[in-house]
Amino acid sequence: MWEGLQPELAAVATGSHIDAIPYSGKYDGVVGVLGAIEAINVLKRSGFKPKRSLEVILFTSEEPTRFGISCLGSRLLAGSEALANALKTTVDGQNISFFDAARSAGYANDQDDLSSVFLKKGTYSAFVELHIEQGPILEEEGISIGIVTAIAAPASIRVEFEGNGGHAGAVLMPKRNDAGLAAAELALAVERHVLESGSIDSVGTVGILELHPGAINSIPSKSHIEIDTRDIDEERRNIIIEKIRQSANTIAINRGVRLSEFKIINQDPPALSEKSIIEAMEASSKELNLTHKLMISRAYHDSLFMARVSPMGMIFIPCYKGYSHKPEEFSSVDDISNGVKVLALTLAKLSLE
Amino acid sequence: MWEGLQPELAAVATGSHIDAIPYSGKYDGVVGVLGAIEAINVLKRSGFKPKRSLEVILFTSEEPTRFGISCLGSRLLAGSEALANALKTTVDGQNISFFDAARSAGYANDQDDLSSVFLKKGTYSAFVELHIEQGPILEEEGISIGIVTAIAAPASIRVEFEGNGGHAGAVLMPKRNDAGLAAAELALAVERHVLESGSIDSVGTVGILELHPGAINSIPSKSHIEIDTRDIDEERRNIIIEKIRQSANTIAINRGVRLSEFKIINQDPPALSEKSIIEAMEASSKELNLTHKLMISRAYHDSLFMARVSPMGMIFIPCYKGYSHKPEEFSSVDDISNGVKVLALTLAKLSLE
Repeated sequence: MWEGLQPELAAVATGSHIDAIPYSGKYDGVVGVLGAIEAINVLKRSGFKPKRSLEVILFTSEEPTRFGISCLGSRLLAGSEALANALKTTVDGQNISFFDAARSAGYANDQDDLSSVFLKKGTYSAFVELHIEQGPILEEEGISIGIVTAIAAPASIRVEFEGNGGHAGAVLMPKRNDAGLAAAELALAVERHVLESGSIDSVGTVGILELHPGAINSIPSKSHIEIDTRDIDEERRNIIIEKIRQSANTIAINRGVRLSEFKIINQDPPALSEKSIIEAMEASSKELNLTHKLMISRAYHDSLFMARVSPMGMIFIPCYKGYSHKPEEFSSVDDISNGVKVLALTLAKLSLE
Repeated sequence: MWEGLQPELAAVATGSHIDAIPYSGKYDGVVGVLGAIEAINVLKRSGFKPKRSLEVILFTSEEPTRFGISCLGSRLLAGSEALANALKTTVDGQNISFFDAARSAGYANDQDDLSSVFLKKGTYSAFVELHIEQGPILEEEGISIGIVTAIAAPASIRVEFEGNGGHAGAVLMPKRNDAGLAAAELALAVERHVLESGSIDSVGTVGILELHPGAINSIPSKSHIEIDTRDIDEERRNIIIEKIRQSANTIAINRGVRLSEFKIINQDPPALSEKSIIEAMEASSKELNLTHKLMISRAYHDSLFMARVSPMGMIFIPCYKGYSHKPEEFSSVDDISNGVKVLALTLAKLSLE
């Protein structure tokens, strides 16, 4: 925290997350954390005196890969009672509880009461996040800065099918109820329902599909799939979720397997950036002679949840071929530098408002 | 080895395997090993004197789950040069070499020369294996003993697809080449091609389907599937394999993914039981007043490979609901006892021939 001349005013915050998925790149999140620190340094070196205090926030567990739900830090800051309760019994894939993991990282407090971190609305006058685009648009169009006007509405679903399994040689085809083929059908149904929406903005992905027992000569007796679906239109996305649910039921009936779980892990609304922050980001880009465009974030970010308790804005920078969530993820030093400059100037403007 | 009165004659051998797949039952294999030992004990207690020597064989690595290929013991005894060479560079999922694993179990010899275990044809005058049916027929029909006349021809295939992966939110549907959906399509194509054969004896299974990186918010950039297909008709099974290959190619083209591997791990012919051994098993069942029926083994066994170097026969006993390769696998003490009696009497007859 860099105390402003009027520390009694709501502060301006910036930051992003420091965690990553397995086999990921090293720019997603980290650019917005190191960029936030550098933006503050730039302002200090320039002799700037903020009116509102400036704060840097480092989120963790933005990615859902360890505990199955994304954006733990920002959801909690935004006051999610449901999540605070759920985390009391949440464990990771190695059966380590969320609280044990948090404590071993030096984070959790003694009483395991996460409600102590909930932010009051009005704590911040603005939250601004710098992030790589994770899509190809800025690079393809040769534009330096993306100014995010809205973040698409994400949802994730966990599904399990159970059948009788058995020996891959001895159980004849008519006697089978193969949980693995049920999962394969549902994965293809997710794709079909997304394409049926007719909108380029609807996406759906099966990133996890696991078979049990997972032996070549054993018919799968259980399957587990995790589905991610997003849209800038919340209602359209909810129709897709409903179709996926119907397909899961139909597949279970047709294959004689049991749909033992169909759980919507999260189903969040989209978030709109604050008009005054968009204007500050646009003005900063112009003053720095950087090309910019207004755009939608199809990936979601901690900003999606910070928007529930604070006016929000996001700055995007180009990344190589739009690659993200894989090792080829890359943004050049020049592009990062441009983003940090726009962030610094935007923070300066917002701190004076 | 129990030396017979004429040890210069080819011996009669019996046995089965002691290994199991993950999350398996405890009867598959083990019944034929303990049953073989008990059958010899029964003959000794009865005062029987064998003419040909009697031998018990304990196979290991019958299941393909550790090193990716089944029946390592019996394939090597049967003289598979190709396997002996392949095992020089084979590792398990933890990157432990076959030879290190064998040594740590006390098996491998110093020079790593597996050809020393190849059996000469004529070493055994007969090989007889006792095994649970792993199918529901004997239990459903209330029959005590199954006499196997042939073992279906097995094959296994390993397939990998590769796409570009990417972020599940940011990469729009038309830009995707999802390796996971390619695998899902191929799994369903395997089922379709098997059903197209029109024969109840054709089976096909995808027991392994793995996605990389395996994160809910990441489009699969790689998928790995393993396919098992079997038939009592070798030609019909080979047609199914060819159709699977064509589907894998077509799916790769349609989805813009790369078919980076399509490897047939094994593609074995069926095996026929020896007429004289079938007759000895039938006669033994009759003398013991046990109901019996001639049947085909759809699962395969070490006997499939022993048949390459020895006349072969198999005795099946009922198992609960035909369950196998899962914890519910069960055969009653009475059924096991019946199988051991038929095995003992069959060995006695064969040792006197």
